[in-house]
Amino acid sequence: MSVDLSAYTSKINTAFSKYLPHKAGYFKTIYDAMHYSIEAGGKRTRPTLMQLCYEAVGGKESIDAYLCAIEMIHTYSLIHDDLPAMDNDDYRRGRLTNHKVFGEAIAILAGDGLLTEAFHIMLCDALAHGGQERLHAACILSEASGVEGMIGGQVLDMESENKEISLETLDVIHLNKTGALIAAATKMGAVLGGGSAREVSLLEAYGKYIGKVFQIVDDVLDATSTMEELGKPIGSDAENHKNTYLSFYSIEECYQIAEEMTSKAVRLLDQIEGDTYLLEQIAMQLIKRRN
Amino acid sequence: MSVDLSAYTSKINTAFSKYLPHKAGYFKTIYDAMHYSIEAGGKRTRPTLMQLCYEAVGGKESIDAYLCAIEMIHTYSLIHDDLPAMDNDDYRRGRLTNHKVFGEAIAILAGDGLLTEAFHIMLCDALAHGGQERLHAACILSEASGVEGMIGGQVLDMESENKEISLETLDVIHLNKTGALIAAATKMGAVLGGGSAREVSLLEAYGKYIGKVFQIVDDVLDATSTMEELGKPIGSDAENHKNTYLSFYSIEECYQIAEEMTSKAVRLLDQIEGDTYLLEQIAMQLIKRRN
Repeated sequence: MSVDLSAYTSKINTAFSKYLPHKAGYFKTIYDAMHYSIEAGGKRTRPTLMQLCYEAVGGKESIDAYLCAIEMIHTYSLIHDDLPAMDNDDYRRGRLTNHKVFGEAIAILAGDGLLTEAFHIMLCDALAHGGQERLHAACILSEASGVEGMIGGQVLDMESENKEISLETLDVIHLNKTGALIAAATKMGAVLGGGSAREVSLLEAYGKYIGKVFQIVDDVLDATSTMEELGKPIGSDAENHKNTYLSFYSIEECYQIAEEMTSKAVRLLDQIEGDTYLLEQIAMQLIKRRN
Repeated sequence: MSVDLSAYTSKINTAFSKYLPHKAGYFKTIYDAMHYSIEAGGKRTRPTLMQLCYEAVGGKESIDAYLCAIEMIHTYSLIHDDLPAMDNDDYRRGRLTNHKVFGEAIAILAGDGLLTEAFHIMLCDALAHGGQERLHAACILSEASGVEGMIGGQVLDMESENKEISLETLDVIHLNKTGALIAAATKMGAVLGGGSAREVSLLEAYGKYIGKVFQIVDDVLDATSTMEELGKPIGSDAENHKNTYLSFYSIEECYQIAEEMTSKAVRLLDQIEGDTYLLEQIAMQLIKRRN
């Protein structure tokens, strides 16, 4: 039994038609390249988490600008990660990667474009609405995706290839490379919804736990899944001599740690007054995912 | 006789020690790579223009966050432009380009980092100060550096290589690729300083004119200067089959157009009540520059 989040996914896909419209004319190419990767699908995990946390603390307005922005930042990071100079991946989500279709130069610029437009969308929205919550949310995202967040984690990950690193360093890599953006999603939702300091802190901590579960399962799937299931080549971690949780734990131990983290995440949700049913379901399903 | 802007350059360089500090620890590499390009010097033209416009409309506080942000965005664009997949340049400002020192992957991420941190710095500042001017300034920069600004201009420029294009298309390229950020600098200064709508519009227009002069002179210098003077290889436009103003005009005609634009820019400044002496000098010197 899988929880149905399709209403959220649809909501986000619809929001993109407003915030990242198709364009003809002089700038068609860069819009096409950005759309190619945004429309490659993906589970819209980060914006879904943001919207659910927003609702959990009682948010009632539209935060579509922020939902799109976090997905655009996630997508830009994938485009740049896939480049020949980085992971050199030809497939992503079962389709050719951006640079295989548009060439390296346009792929670099499409990533730059998604990153810049993500901030532009949030800044326009914050300017139109006034108030501090929206500006605060944009600030959280800029920190999480920056050099002491996602980018820093990626650099540390690359530097650690072909090296023996400590479990502590691996944790720093993952906390930043993937965890920062997931925790930003849940924290932003709570801030945008006007949650109390306690709610913001609980939901951010929830995000950190499930971010770690996400990464542990990712490492296991890269070693054990099939390309058909995963939509991208498997075994790339081993091929690139990357450090993963499997360098430290067996698959069984990995799942055991992931289960402990999931329980902790769910117990945090119990302390929130609003409806957290779907957030709980997401936490419990992360551990079962096959792609 | 050259106007002395060293006080402004120093001010900006000092501001970087606050807004882009040196860091040890896990994230040292990415900070080092970002600093390498920020500290390569450059004339700090954009932040200097911003500060001068800010003062011209009566601004009296510190806008260091925005001065650093626009220079960081300019610098990130140079790092990405120099990449092998783009212009493939080995030298910039007389030093090896970022990817020649740190490798392509880190150079891509250093660019991403500068872009993200630029927004982070502005968002933190806007959040701390409250008020709409600072948020508005950040929004202007996000638009100017985005896909319908600097990035779009760069894509259009690449698409036009080895092709005959119209003068209109060339103008669109330059208005966006280089002009947008220069006009953003002057407009942001006016907005941050609380200038009237008329002052904002006059200073933005001034920025557009001098942006065009800057580009025309750039095209001429690429064809006529020496590597020693320019600090980067000359003749790269011709080598990369780029369209420049020299495809449409003689060198003499280029300078004549640049002079007309300069006069127009200076006449706009005459309508501003505050002190615009240095802005006038900058406009008149752009046309005489040798690097």
